[in-house]
Amino acid sequence: MADPTMTDPDKYKVIFENDRVRVLEYRDEPGQKTRPHEHPDSVIYTLGSFRRRLIGSGGQAIDVTLTQGEARWLEAQTHSGENIGDTPTHVLFVELKEPTRPGGGASLGPA
Amino acid sequence: MADPTMTDPDKYKVIFENDRVRVLEYRDEPGQKTRPHEHPDSVIYTLGSFRRRLIGSGGQAIDVTLTQGEARWLEAQTHSGENIGDTPTHVLFVELKEPTRPGGGASLGPA
Repeated sequence: MADPTMTDPDKYKVIFENDRVRVLEYRDEPGQKTRPHEHPDSVIYTLGSFRRRLIGSGGQAIDVTLTQGEARWLEAQTHSGENIGDTPTHVLFVELKEPTRPGGGASLGPA
Repeated sequence: MADPTMTDPDKYKVIFENDRVRVLEYRDEPGQKTRPHEHPDSVIYTLGSFRRRLIGSGGQAIDVTLTQGEARWLEAQTHSGENIGDTPTHVLFVELKEPTRPGGGASLGPA
C-alpha cells in the first residue's frame, strides 16, 4: 500500500482520522508531481480550481480540469499526478475505510 | 427521518450522491435557524469560520465555534441549529451511508 502521506508527505496532510474515515488535505504548485500512490474509495472536494494529469498504474493518462467547489467520487485506484495548470492544486479527500463494494471497476480519475 | 434537505431546503443542497455517500453544502446567515433534522454519521469540513448553537432532541444546547479548514466527525444525531455569530455558516457534510457502528453514543455536535 503506497500511502500518499508516505510517498508525498510534503503535499498530503492528514487533518482528521477515526475508524470510519481519514481526511487528507492536498496542496501543490504548478509543475509539481506526485509519486505513484494508492487511494481507497474517496470523496474529493475541490478547494480551488486546477488542472492535472493523472497517470494510472498501466501508464494510461487522463487530464482533468476541476473547478472550486466540486464534490466528486474517486474510486479506489493507484496513480500519480502532475499539476499541468497554472494554479495551485488544493483538494480535500475523505477516504472511506469500509471495503470497496464488489463489482467496482478501477476508473482512472474522479467520476 | 427528518432529512435536512427537506426541513431546510434553502440552506442544505445536495452536491453529490452515490450508494456510499451523500455530500451536502450548508449555508446560512447570522441569526438564521434550522428546523429539527437528522444527520447520519458524517464528516464535516468548515468552508468558513462561524459560531452556532445546536439544540438536541432532548432540549440540551451546546455552542460551537469552528474555524475555516477544520475536518470534524459528526456522530448520527437529531438537532436544530442557530447561527449565533456574526459571519455566515458555510459547511460541507459528507454523509456515510454505511450503518452506524454498534456502541456509538449520540454526542451533540461535532467531535
